[in-house]
Amino acid sequence: MLVLVTYDVVTKTPIGRKRLRKVAKICENFGIRVQNSVFECVVDATQFKQLQLALQEIIDVEEDSLRFYQLGNNYKSKVIHIGAKETFNVEDTIIL
Amino acid sequence: MLVLVTYDVVTKTPIGRKRLRKVAKICENFGIRVQNSVFECVVDATQFKQLQLALQEIIDVEEDSLRFYQLGNNYKSKVIHIGAKETFNVEDTIIL
Repeated sequence: MLVLVTYDVVTKTPIGRKRLRKVAKICENFGIRVQNSVFECVVDATQFKQLQLALQEIIDVEEDSLRFYQLGNNYKSKVIHIGAKETFNVEDTIIL
Repeated sequence: MLVLVTYDVVTKTPIGRKRLRKVAKICENFGIRVQNSVFECVVDATQFKQLQLALQEIIDVEEDSLRFYQLGNNYKSKVIHIGAKETFNVEDTIIL
């Protein structure tokens, strides 16, 4: 299923900026960055739980905001992209 | 239906910052800001089209990125919030 992860991490302090880097790094392990603070992750239920737990351990729940949107398996028709950073299929293999 | 709008607007120039303000203002007319660049909009098909057209007129398609995620009518169980800025029901009336 596609899970969208969006976050706002408060980066006024070095600790905040460190949290932001860690959050992005974990999201990179599970999916593809489509915007600065938006990742699309194709995961199963177990991976989704792992992703949630990993991010919960990092964020400051008093300051940061983390949201997950579950778009199911038939998500391709549910996503529209306009502008730069053209949309791509997160399930496609990247050939280097 | 719930439509999630996420955007990256390049704000290196005054024109870019103006675009960002305009994008946010239009989104505010259609929904609720849940994070800095993320809005949740409960709209019908016509309103969704209006929202897309209004935003397309403003963004710079060479620089900015705009994404729409359609979460349907039964979206409440599909959204998980963790941390600050507690989740709220975008259909609830705000009593001041």
